[in-house]
Amino acid sequence: MNSRQRFLAACRREETDRPPAWMMRQAGRYLPEYREVRSGSTFLGMVHDSDRAAEVTMQPIRRYGQDAAVIFCDILVPPAAMGMDVEFIEGQGPVLGPPIRNREAVDRLQDFDANDATGFLGDSIRKVRAELGDERAIIGFCGAPFTVASYMVEGQSSRNFENTKQMMLGDPETFDRLLTRVTDNSVGYLKMQADAGADVLQIFDSWGGALSAEVYRERLFPHVQRLVAEAKGFGVPAILYVNGCSHLLEVMADTGADVLGIDWRVNPAEAIARVGDRVALQGNLDPCTLFAPPDVVRREAAKNLDAFTDQRGYIFNLGSGILPKTPLESVAALWETVLGSPLPEAATA
Amino acid sequence: MNSRQRFLAACRREETDRPPAWMMRQAGRYLPEYREVRSGSTFLGMVHDSDRAAEVTMQPIRRYGQDAAVIFCDILVPPAAMGMDVEFIEGQGPVLGPPIRNREAVDRLQDFDANDATGFLGDSIRKVRAELGDERAIIGFCGAPFTVASYMVEGQSSRNFENTKQMMLGDPETFDRLLTRVTDNSVGYLKMQADAGADVLQIFDSWGGALSAEVYRERLFPHVQRLVAEAKGFGVPAILYVNGCSHLLEVMADTGADVLGIDWRVNPAEAIARVGDRVALQGNLDPCTLFAPPDVVRREAAKNLDAFTDQRGYIFNLGSGILPKTPLESVAALWETVLGSPLPEAATA
Repeated sequence: MNSRQRFLAACRREETDRPPAWMMRQAGRYLPEYREVRSGSTFLGMVHDSDRAAEVTMQPIRRYGQDAAVIFCDILVPPAAMGMDVEFIEGQGPVLGPPIRNREAVDRLQDFDANDATGFLGDSIRKVRAELGDERAIIGFCGAPFTVASYMVEGQSSRNFENTKQMMLGDPETFDRLLTRVTDNSVGYLKMQADAGADVLQIFDSWGGALSAEVYRERLFPHVQRLVAEAKGFGVPAILYVNGCSHLLEVMADTGADVLGIDWRVNPAEAIARVGDRVALQGNLDPCTLFAPPDVVRREAAKNLDAFTDQRGYIFNLGSGILPKTPLESVAALWETVLGSPLPEAATA
Repeated sequence: MNSRQRFLAACRREETDRPPAWMMRQAGRYLPEYREVRSGSTFLGMVHDSDRAAEVTMQPIRRYGQDAAVIFCDILVPPAAMGMDVEFIEGQGPVLGPPIRNREAVDRLQDFDANDATGFLGDSIRKVRAELGDERAIIGFCGAPFTVASYMVEGQSSRNFENTKQMMLGDPETFDRLLTRVTDNSVGYLKMQADAGADVLQIFDSWGGALSAEVYRERLFPHVQRLVAEAKGFGVPAILYVNGCSHLLEVMADTGADVLGIDWRVNPAEAIARVGDRVALQGNLDPCTLFAPPDVVRREAAKNLDAFTDQRGYIFNLGSGILPKTPLESVAALWETVLGSPLPEAATA
């Protein structure tokens, strides 16, 4: 059973020899070789350059040998392709303009052809595939409609999402129209990734946890369900990740996603009991654990793996993305524990 | 039944004629009269000046007539009294220095006598009492040990708490010592508030929701439980508020708190089913609801009240603090709905 087979088997809730494993943001700033490739260019410059995007996608695989490569890209690529100005400002995060605050702004958004507007991502996937062969899985992704829409409405990262919720409650038709347009465009964007060779598609609902289950079900669910169904229609498993999802597990499972990505606040036994009989689970070590010394990382990672022993269909991951300042010795300790075999020599460089 | 009786009855899970109501951060920047008193002085300058602190504490009561006044203060007053530099920087939030990162720094912290070091808060409470008489309840408060400690370790607001969790996992004895010292000092600080006339004490665990229930129980619970027990020992009910607490309700109830403050992501029926037979509940309208038009605010507030009809012991509140840019017409619509009587004339000024 190679890594790709192992990963796909877990998504389908079939037996695996060990849990497959990857890490959100594994191609990222905590790696010195990433910072080297990145130096002197903007974040979006990297995304648009399929050679460099493929290169940084491969970096963690070469160093640690995870079972899946997650393609280097960003959830704000679709809003840019829909006509918004998107910039990543160092130390501040993304800035999008002008913010979408009314029906006219929603109507002015463009639909895009994924091959024309975001072909660089297809190229990145093909280049990674050429290097990986069929040995490891490739994960493509997009943001969930609410998460993407919240950036479009707020114009930046937000702690409270007051403008987004203002539109949701005060002008629900316009908000629903925005979610529909984001979903419409995300479907083609995911299809392009599957066509280019992505084995699995993950939908990132980074901010969906800011809503109650009732509101999630009423306002977001139809769009997420549709996106999941479309992804599965492309012949690949769909993973739905929501950060802060302990109150949302049932509505997440109802979307039809093959795998639920859960954050570190969710108790594994409880997740297994609530939805483990109908979905595979992915997660959920606290990324801050990696700031602890290596022996603590080994202990906590082993504990996390143990907690999911009884789950049919389990993929190891962190509960959210790895943080930029994470010390490498702890990352190495994690992968030694989780992958259970000596790491490539490069791992500790 | 006056407001104070109504509030205390709800805390004790006794019958009330209607649910008592207040709002976290009700003395705050969304009120023009607050901004007027505030103008030209620092946030901490206001806290230290018991005349102005009492004045802004009274402002929302005069305008809307809530059942309880929450004393104007800040959860970072104790760290300052323990010897840290604490500053509030406009548009950025609190900055504390130097950050507490090791055992030596924990040991250098000072214990403080609450009357000597924070007597201004006792003065504020007495001045508010003089104005309110026994008509309305006065709520005193402190931060929960983890929330306060996380500010002391990070030195500022944090999204991920990596330094705090690094200490918690990498040097658990030092972290526990820090929690103990914060708790030690919080006990005297709460006692001083009860002695000055606070009817109820709320413990704000703004960031406790960043931990799993297992970690909360293992690392924080003994300290929170002790603080709750001490507060109750002063003869007043204790409210434990945790933001993002849907996974923590049972451990919160186990602390012995009389009332649990819950955020808007918690489903009311579920909270009632899980812990409503042993604690009163407080919450939980999404503060972003107040950015919607008044008719939507009325509908959502009524829905929220309805959801708690079956709960013995219920206090209306938002699920977290009111936001600075909240429109006043929506705040008036909320209080009309919740207090169920014509507002004072000042309400819509």
